[in-house]
Amino acid sequence: MYCDRLKKLEVLVTKNRLDGIVLNPGASLTYLTGLEFHMMERPVVFVFVPGKLPALVLPELEKAKLKETPFDCHPFFFGDNPADRDRAFQNALNKVPLINMRIGVEPTRFRYLEFQYLTNATPTTHFLDGSQVFNYLRIQKDDSEVTAMRKAVDIAQKAFLALLPQIRIGVSEKEMANELTTLLLKFGSDPELPFQVIFSSGPNSANPHATPSDRKIQEGDLVVIDWGANYNGYASDLTRTLVMGSPTDEQIKIAESVLHANKAGREAGRPGIHAGAVDHAARAEIEKDGFGDYFTHRTGHGLGMEAHETPYMFAENEELLSTGMVYTVEPGIYLPEKGGVRIEDDVLVTENGSSSLSDLPRELYIIK
Amino acid sequence: MYCDRLKKLEVLVTKNRLDGIVLNPGASLTYLTGLEFHMMERPVVFVFVPGKLPALVLPELEKAKLKETPFDCHPFFFGDNPADRDRAFQNALNKVPLINMRIGVEPTRFRYLEFQYLTNATPTTHFLDGSQVFNYLRIQKDDSEVTAMRKAVDIAQKAFLALLPQIRIGVSEKEMANELTTLLLKFGSDPELPFQVIFSSGPNSANPHATPSDRKIQEGDLVVIDWGANYNGYASDLTRTLVMGSPTDEQIKIAESVLHANKAGREAGRPGIHAGAVDHAARAEIEKDGFGDYFTHRTGHGLGMEAHETPYMFAENEELLSTGMVYTVEPGIYLPEKGGVRIEDDVLVTENGSSSLSDLPRELYIIK
Repeated sequence: MYCDRLKKLEVLVTKNRLDGIVLNPGASLTYLTGLEFHMMERPVVFVFVPGKLPALVLPELEKAKLKETPFDCHPFFFGDNPADRDRAFQNALNKVPLINMRIGVEPTRFRYLEFQYLTNATPTTHFLDGSQVFNYLRIQKDDSEVTAMRKAVDIAQKAFLALLPQIRIGVSEKEMANELTTLLLKFGSDPELPFQVIFSSGPNSANPHATPSDRKIQEGDLVVIDWGANYNGYASDLTRTLVMGSPTDEQIKIAESVLHANKAGREAGRPGIHAGAVDHAARAEIEKDGFGDYFTHRTGHGLGMEAHETPYMFAENEELLSTGMVYTVEPGIYLPEKGGVRIEDDVLVTENGSSSLSDLPRELYIIK
Repeated sequence: MYCDRLKKLEVLVTKNRLDGIVLNPGASLTYLTGLEFHMMERPVVFVFVPGKLPALVLPELEKAKLKETPFDCHPFFFGDNPADRDRAFQNALNKVPLINMRIGVEPTRFRYLEFQYLTNATPTTHFLDGSQVFNYLRIQKDDSEVTAMRKAVDIAQKAFLALLPQIRIGVSEKEMANELTTLLLKFGSDPELPFQVIFSSGPNSANPHATPSDRKIQEGDLVVIDWGANYNGYASDLTRTLVMGSPTDEQIKIAESVLHANKAGREAGRPGIHAGAVDHAARAEIEKDGFGDYFTHRTGHGLGMEAHETPYMFAENEELLSTGMVYTVEPGIYLPEKGGVRIEDDVLVTENGSSSLSDLPRELYIIK
């Protein structure tokens, strides 16, 4: 498996006129090597040039991981004195030289820390934006990846259903967020969730990126819950909206508008269309209902080993969809000071169209 | 509070002959502004030059956070089309120009992503390693910070005591790691833990950075548990070791050696000594017992808003300790294929010495 993936990397590197890439910890490194590290103050760097055995610079502390997950590479270890690191980088760059080469990096991962050690060891190397490599490396999910994502969706849906009976007037956002986290673990999520649960109520639900607070749920609140599980390193990402007690006419109206937008967005995807077309389809429904100004974010984002990855579903995106891509469809309407509604599903592009991995009821949940 | 902290930043910037700093999301940004963002594919950048109102470039999606946590700055928003970002960066850098300036960055945070947008907007700026600013900004904890850390320790200790009766032959590492995570939330941790729980058993405990696996606990296993809570954004980080059933002579021997090392390390700290002296004190005990080769990592690391921060307790570190610093003391002995022992406490430097924030029994826990 890892051999095939390295070949895919090689093709992407060559196609993008790069001479190689360097990577630090994250989804791409795990995808290519099976190795998992956290990004911390100790650098871990993978150096790849087509046709050569890759080099890996890493802390001695992580030696055991190379035994557990054998990946064929030249390892170079350093100890806990930072002064020791330059030597490890120099040895790695002697083994896989990057002299005068054009080397791609992952802009959302590659830090000044790694840049410093690398340029000390190989000052003539040009480090360039390697997005074109990393955006496409993992964008089409194979069957085993889709299976893992279905399982991550299943865990998330079960956790939500188990949480529902506990949501009532007087409990706090934080309590409910913690309870949902607990349920995600209980139903089998990997210990590390793809992102922290959002549980926002009343006016807080008008903030799409709210952090769970001590606010207690009140009669009449809209409640937006955005959560996901990881399974074998693959993420799910769902959102549903509740109302505490009888909904007002306005609440019903925005919930219906978002529901229509979600449906249009879920059904829009198929191979060969622009990613932006999914955004257009969802947004058109909300604009038609007169709430366009209150749908303040893109319709979705790619999903896989990362909670946010390519393709991004924003209006102007002319990237073409193809089979095996997975992305969220998550339109929302946010009325400042009042509250918001968001409905989010995870959608897979199939040969003839697209299908949702998630199937929890999408209507406004009325909690009485 | 934030005003005082910005003044502290100003002093550090000037002292290190910088003209300003740029920061992306993380502990330093939250410390300075109260604002919390995740580091994602959308850049958030804070631009600070002494004597000027700072600029903040951020996604429109995060607008609500500026209302909830008012921090006086010039905000510049961008939408979900990445093509929109350059304009926001350009406007920010017109407001707070960095022309020909020496600007410090945080090496463990500053990414190629931010670097690209900034250099597009201000090509003459020199971005330099700002470690000397960021390493000292948060290194001395004030009373309110220590109080939060004591609470984070308290939550972690309670969670551990509640987990203990559930640890028995046949349960898996993953089950126990998930249960401990659940208990940390239950006892009041912030939803985001400082790091993922390590629960490693038998031979896995010989890997200091093990990931919880499906391995089931067996008779005779050493079990290393490394866990922590966050409280109001401040971390605790503890480790204790268990043995399943009667310990062997060798297990007893290494557990005692680590216990002596932990004590020596906890008691070594005081204002004015090198951070390395704490490492020496702990390591000397383990070397004296003949296990020096199996203590494969530094004795500890600073602790605060980040799980790992300055000061780092490695032998060669000549940084001077001062009151209010908090760091871990976590010696360990790891016998390959057999198992390991680690005992970790969180230590505060006081006026006359140092004192441990944690007080759970440190002896090998014998589980029968």
